[in-house]
Amino acid sequence: MNKQVKLAKRPIGMPSEDTWVLETNEIPTIKDGEFLLRQDYISLDPAMRGWMNDAKSYIPPVQIGEVMRAGSIGEVVESKHPGFKVGDSVTGWGGVQQYVATNGQGFYKVDTSLAPAPMYIGTLGMPGMTAYFGILEVGKIKEGETVLVSGAAGAVGSVVGQIAKIKGCTVIGTAGGPEKCKYVVEQLGFDACIDYKNDNVYKGLKAAAPKGIDVYFDNVGGEILDIALSQIRMHARIVICGAISQYNNKENVKGPANYLSLLVNRGTMTGMVVMDYAKDYGTAAQNMGMWMAQGKLKSREDIYEGIENFYGTFQRLFNGDKMGKLILKISE
Amino acid sequence: MNKQVKLAKRPIGMPSEDTWVLETNEIPTIKDGEFLLRQDYISLDPAMRGWMNDAKSYIPPVQIGEVMRAGSIGEVVESKHPGFKVGDSVTGWGGVQQYVATNGQGFYKVDTSLAPAPMYIGTLGMPGMTAYFGILEVGKIKEGETVLVSGAAGAVGSVVGQIAKIKGCTVIGTAGGPEKCKYVVEQLGFDACIDYKNDNVYKGLKAAAPKGIDVYFDNVGGEILDIALSQIRMHARIVICGAISQYNNKENVKGPANYLSLLVNRGTMTGMVVMDYAKDYGTAAQNMGMWMAQGKLKSREDIYEGIENFYGTFQRLFNGDKMGKLILKISE
Repeated sequence: MNKQVKLAKRPIGMPSEDTWVLETNEIPTIKDGEFLLRQDYISLDPAMRGWMNDAKSYIPPVQIGEVMRAGSIGEVVESKHPGFKVGDSVTGWGGVQQYVATNGQGFYKVDTSLAPAPMYIGTLGMPGMTAYFGILEVGKIKEGETVLVSGAAGAVGSVVGQIAKIKGCTVIGTAGGPEKCKYVVEQLGFDACIDYKNDNVYKGLKAAAPKGIDVYFDNVGGEILDIALSQIRMHARIVICGAISQYNNKENVKGPANYLSLLVNRGTMTGMVVMDYAKDYGTAAQNMGMWMAQGKLKSREDIYEGIENFYGTFQRLFNGDKMGKLILKISE
Repeated sequence: MNKQVKLAKRPIGMPSEDTWVLETNEIPTIKDGEFLLRQDYISLDPAMRGWMNDAKSYIPPVQIGEVMRAGSIGEVVESKHPGFKVGDSVTGWGGVQQYVATNGQGFYKVDTSLAPAPMYIGTLGMPGMTAYFGILEVGKIKEGETVLVSGAAGAVGSVVGQIAKIKGCTVIGTAGGPEKCKYVVEQLGFDACIDYKNDNVYKGLKAAAPKGIDVYFDNVGGEILDIALSQIRMHARIVICGAISQYNNKENVKGPANYLSLLVNRGTMTGMVVMDYAKDYGTAAQNMGMWMAQGKLKSREDIYEGIENFYGTFQRLFNGDKMGKLILKISE
């Protein structure tokens, strides 16, 4: 049978358990030109929250009654497609379901002998690509610059900071709690990490970057974005990748009150969506793979089990109770 | 004698009459290498409000007891400087005072036989330069794009819109009141103008630019910035030139709640300060002079008289009671 998590209603604020419904349906049969993928792991990303709102965005919202959108990786178990054979490891947008029948659009094969499967939906997947193109193409970091990254222990932020270190920058992170900060500095090699749950971020940033910051990679929005804006140097670049602190707001998003610092400092704030860089994913994966092999880029997955536990695992995205890339194993 | 307007105290919110003090002092004597400028006109700009705050910005704040900073134009009446002779028309940062003795730093000569003196502190001065570099270098307008300009009847906005028309864009302005909107459309040739005091800006913009906007040149901040953000197209550029709606706030600046539209639309928001383009002022003035000679670029000055009326004239910057470039004639 095929267990599927479908969107049951549009949440207001933080989703509740009845936002989704778990259904058990027949495993789909495949037509000519299709293959059947057994999905082993799904990726849990803050962006999922945005996909649930009925608003114009960079991709259409998930419709009520549809399988919840998610990145996934699994194995081909049946194939009538010339390009995919049984046993192939395949990643794509499979959604929160144990099996998917597809013509292969948006899916591609990966080599799980080079890296474990979960890594292909983490550091070698969308979050890693977001980090790579965000910090290099949008942030345009240069050797010797000072970079601030929020969500530094997360799937995107951890990679952003490590790439900035590889490129010769001074890198400061923000993360929630002493354990995460310790990981960010000791394991990932950031120069400093500010624990936003327990420390004063403004003071922490002044201490870690007394001359200000050249690049801020923003995953969180809210208060930390405002503090970052107050500390930018001339011609600073702010990369708007996400705003996790604002995704479950019932009221308006908190706009950055300090945005006029962009004027004073001739700064720029630019939004990004990783899909725009799809044609260069190959090059990025090659570089990131090389850095991993050299021990310069570390990847950490936080893997939970059971499609029944989708809701509880999803909550960890927003309550901070995870470390690294959040993944749910859904095959049985 | 030399009448001078000096900063008496730091205002909170909208400045009051006692924010400045009018003094009558001796006309300064000049040393070798200096000249004495009789100042005929001063420029009144929204940016003045920012210069009065004791905060780090793109130039140091005016100190208490100092002559209020202002752009000016006048005539050399005495000279011990090899580069400036009696009778030369000179513009620079002369401040709100009738006479200034200077070594010439930050001052340069202009030819008032080609254009009237007030125009050199308007369309051919800082406001015009701000418009020119802001819309061309930061906004990077391309033929066929749709451009929104706030403060469209003002010194900067009016020039921004006219340059965008010259470059083949569709141009929409916002201005306060039907008289200004009529001027913007009928005299300046904008395609549309939304009267933000009497009309719904959101609806007006949807009607004037049903496919959205490619560039927004922001002079005002606040509500209109948020509406503009909600209507940007892919890869839109927002030029942050000023935020007149926020300059007299007693509370925090209103940050743009819709800033995540930058993410969805891969937009960019960039701050600018005109001084950065000083090396190219000559080229810009040449182009703008040519457009004026061809009748493609119109300039309008709103000139008041008497240094005693500085406060009342300054208020017109913020209550909207002016049309075009606000100037005060201060020579007697």
